[in-house]
Amino acid sequence: MKDKIFEILEKKKAFDHAIALLHWDLETEAPKMALEKIAATMGFLSAESYSLIINDDFKDMLYNIETESLSDLDKKVIETLRKDFEKLEKIPKEEYVEYSQLTVEATSKWEEAKNADDFEIFKPYLEKIINFNKKFIKYRGYKDHPYNTLLDDYEEGMTVEKTDEFFKKIKQELIPLIKKINTLNKGDNKLKGVFNTDKQKEFSKFLAEYIGFDFSKGVIKESEHPFTLNFDNKDVRITTHYYESDPLSAVFSTIHEGGHAIYEQNIKDEISKTILGEGTSMGVHESQSRMYENMFGRNLNFWIPVYPKLQEKFPEELGDISLEKFYRIVNDSKSSLIRIEADELTYPIHVLIRYELEKEIFETDVDINELPKKWADKYEEYLGIRPETFREGILQDVHWSGGSFGYFSSYALGSAYASQFYHAMCAEFDVEKELKSGSFEKINTYLRENIHQYGKYKNPEEIIMDTTKEKFNPNYYINYLREKYGKLYVLCN
Amino acid sequence: MKDKIFEILEKKKAFDHAIALLHWDLETEAPKMALEKIAATMGFLSAESYSLIINDDFKDMLYNIETESLSDLDKKVIETLRKDFEKLEKIPKEEYVEYSQLTVEATSKWEEAKNADDFEIFKPYLEKIINFNKKFIKYRGYKDHPYNTLLDDYEEGMTVEKTDEFFKKIKQELIPLIKKINTLNKGDNKLKGVFNTDKQKEFSKFLAEYIGFDFSKGVIKESEHPFTLNFDNKDVRITTHYYESDPLSAVFSTIHEGGHAIYEQNIKDEISKTILGEGTSMGVHESQSRMYENMFGRNLNFWIPVYPKLQEKFPEELGDISLEKFYRIVNDSKSSLIRIEADELTYPIHVLIRYELEKEIFETDVDINELPKKWADKYEEYLGIRPETFREGILQDVHWSGGSFGYFSSYALGSAYASQFYHAMCAEFDVEKELKSGSFEKINTYLRENIHQYGKYKNPEEIIMDTTKEKFNPNYYINYLREKYGKLYVLCN
Repeated sequence: MKDKIFEILEKKKAFDHAIALLHWDLETEAPKMALEKIAATMGFLSAESYSLIINDDFKDMLYNIETESLSDLDKKVIETLRKDFEKLEKIPKEEYVEYSQLTVEATSKWEEAKNADDFEIFKPYLEKIINFNKKFIKYRGYKDHPYNTLLDDYEEGMTVEKTDEFFKKIKQELIPLIKKINTLNKGDNKLKGVFNTDKQKEFSKFLAEYIGFDFSKGVIKESEHPFTLNFDNKDVRITTHYYESDPLSAVFSTIHEGGHAIYEQNIKDEISKTILGEGTSMGVHESQSRMYENMFGRNLNFWIPVYPKLQEKFPEELGDISLEKFYRIVNDSKSSLIRIEADELTYPIHVLIRYELEKEIFETDVDINELPKKWADKYEEYLGIRPETFREGILQDVHWSGGSFGYFSSYALGSAYASQFYHAMCAEFDVEKELKSGSFEKINTYLRENIHQYGKYKNPEEIIMDTTKEKFNPNYYINYLREKYGKLYVLCN
Repeated sequence: MKDKIFEILEKKKAFDHAIALLHWDLETEAPKMALEKIAATMGFLSAESYSLIINDDFKDMLYNIETESLSDLDKKVIETLRKDFEKLEKIPKEEYVEYSQLTVEATSKWEEAKNADDFEIFKPYLEKIINFNKKFIKYRGYKDHPYNTLLDDYEEGMTVEKTDEFFKKIKQELIPLIKKINTLNKGDNKLKGVFNTDKQKEFSKFLAEYIGFDFSKGVIKESEHPFTLNFDNKDVRITTHYYESDPLSAVFSTIHEGGHAIYEQNIKDEISKTILGEGTSMGVHESQSRMYENMFGRNLNFWIPVYPKLQEKFPEELGDISLEKFYRIVNDSKSSLIRIEADELTYPIHVLIRYELEKEIFETDVDINELPKKWADKYEEYLGIRPETFREGILQDVHWSGGSFGYFSSYALGSAYASQFYHAMCAEFDVEKELKSGSFEKINTYLRENIHQYGKYKNPEEIIMDTTKEKFNPNYYINYLREKYGKLYVLCN
């Protein structure tokens, strides 16, 4: 029976590989007119993949298999599969297929709407996706709050109650600091010039490799919105987007997606081969990407060996900018409208806003037409600024077009986990010294051994406890931000 | 029953789309370490695709369906399917799957062998592929000559007898001309300089669009060996390869693959949706790519509007080279070792050599170790030159690694068809004048209406007869080459 189950999982892996590749193709290079066929093929393969495990025969095997004689890894596979099964079997197959196709089309419509700055183009798709998710929550059931079902999809064990508490602390502690810094920021911390995108591409390749991305197991490419996609630990792909006027966008998205990718590339072979072969949760995934992006990538010590190489690429544009000035620029903090370009300090507020909106969507009958205004109002309330376009407001992020509700809060949780991991790592060796030395070897070894190698074999709580010897504690994050930005602005200015 | 058959064909299309995309990915961007997983997924999906139609239920439907009430298009689909079925059902599924995986791996090994200039790396794979094909011929049966079975796969109705006759003419008529030109060619028709590959890329994009490639339905990318891949008429992809020292390589492979792609993009929607949605045969396909590449692309009138744009990209390298000089350079004829870089006149001899070798492989028990020497001997005999490396000899082409035996002769047949089509097109309007005017509209309309739109709905013989009002006649080709090269060398020098 075990062999039969694992044989079916092998087949499912082949389907899922093909589906992921179609997705990659769509986002990075497929011609415009190919959309319809790609959506159809993805829909068909998703249905096949779904049918492989959502059927009575498979269910029988899954619940009757004798787990005692299995290895710990196989046990965990069966356990995870049962959980996934319970989630999926409640959704009728036709709806699942329709929804898969819808999200493919919606992603392309979102892009069109964003380019045209026209919410109306995306609205009907958004509405359908929300309605599907509400139906799915009904099918699947929920505890305490409908949104809990979605939160748990991305972060096992996460609830509205816990997330509310986390964001309450963020609001209390960070909003006053942000408001103070907004008044202190003189707005002169900007890079000026035209930065050749071919040179940016070269630098992104260098940077990815520098932090530990292995090009024999990965690809870097371009897309509208940067993302990471993993087929298995030997094929992990990241994208970025190059802007002539803003080289920092590609620099930090490369480090961010690179962090995700290094996590995936470092999963042990024996785990990578199974359904546990991916990051354990979105929150832990984001803890890695944000640690690389912010705690390493926006760290003065990181840039000591790296900044001269960037200056070499852009001697005219950066020759006169000192390392210290550059460090202040990459940590410039000011309320802004675009989440993915927000600084480390204001970033969690962007996430908070989406969290509050999503919570409202799933607890009430929100009128879709009202969403852009609600979005803008929250930006005004928390950050003191208001988007004047959809592109800078509700249309900025891809997630909703792919149906990823419940995802956003993991971004802020991830940052908080990162601070806790960083603190634990610093107790083992001098992380700052390593960054300064220009080598990621010790750092990557620590992260691989404690976090990356396990994939989904350990859940988020286990990873946090085993690595840091305590439960999740958001105070490390608050303290880290208060200290870093206190030094940068309140004390220094 | 009809609906059921067509539903299964829809599914097969989805699998085949995914398989083609995996192939595209492998050839153009997948990381090195991903090979194993990609091969496994392709093998699995090939097996699924195969199983959909190679089974008793499908066979029953296919042979019992009442075809009289069907549309002509559906009738042709059923007829083609029966032919494919007969071909495939004779090969055991396990062997088919094993062979599919083998060719994926062999392609990568071929690349490695070519880079290392080491035949030994590729030899065991080549041997296995040949043995599989010999077994397949046994399973499938043959008439008169085992190689006929393979020739017919690429060119319906083609036989050793007919091909021998065609090549006999080529040998008789062209080898003396080639030998004469070899003595006349002073070897000074070369471009010199370093041609920036980014600029070459820009020019390839321009050129593809100029000849009629539609970027809303296609992609241009890079690979080791240029090729065209079509998912359907709305997604056709071509590759090229850029060399700093030789911009003509990318220029002509772009036009060549562009010709293939325009054929595919121009297939009528209703046909594209079916299994008939591809070029009718390799020979007719090559007739299009070679007409674009040689009869248009190496034509003085073509370059009158285009050459100034190439000069603009490379003012230093081409500023001093006149149009007439450039025309002589792109038509420089001299015996050489690499088929894809051969001039139009010597090209069919490269094909003749592969044809003779393949024929020998399938009619006798050739020792694989002897193949490189046999290859070199033939080059010496027919072209008066001998490869000193495997890279310039037997390892130069990708085809054998993918199992494409029987394919090569269609390259030369294609050139011959092209001359016949060109002759017929010239009777309709002044093709030379169109080329000079800088517009491909009339030309592309003619080719779309007479050839492209039908896909596989008409077979090669029908296409040739309907378009040119006569049977295949290789004399157009011989005359075209004698006239063009006579003018270029014998009369002018």
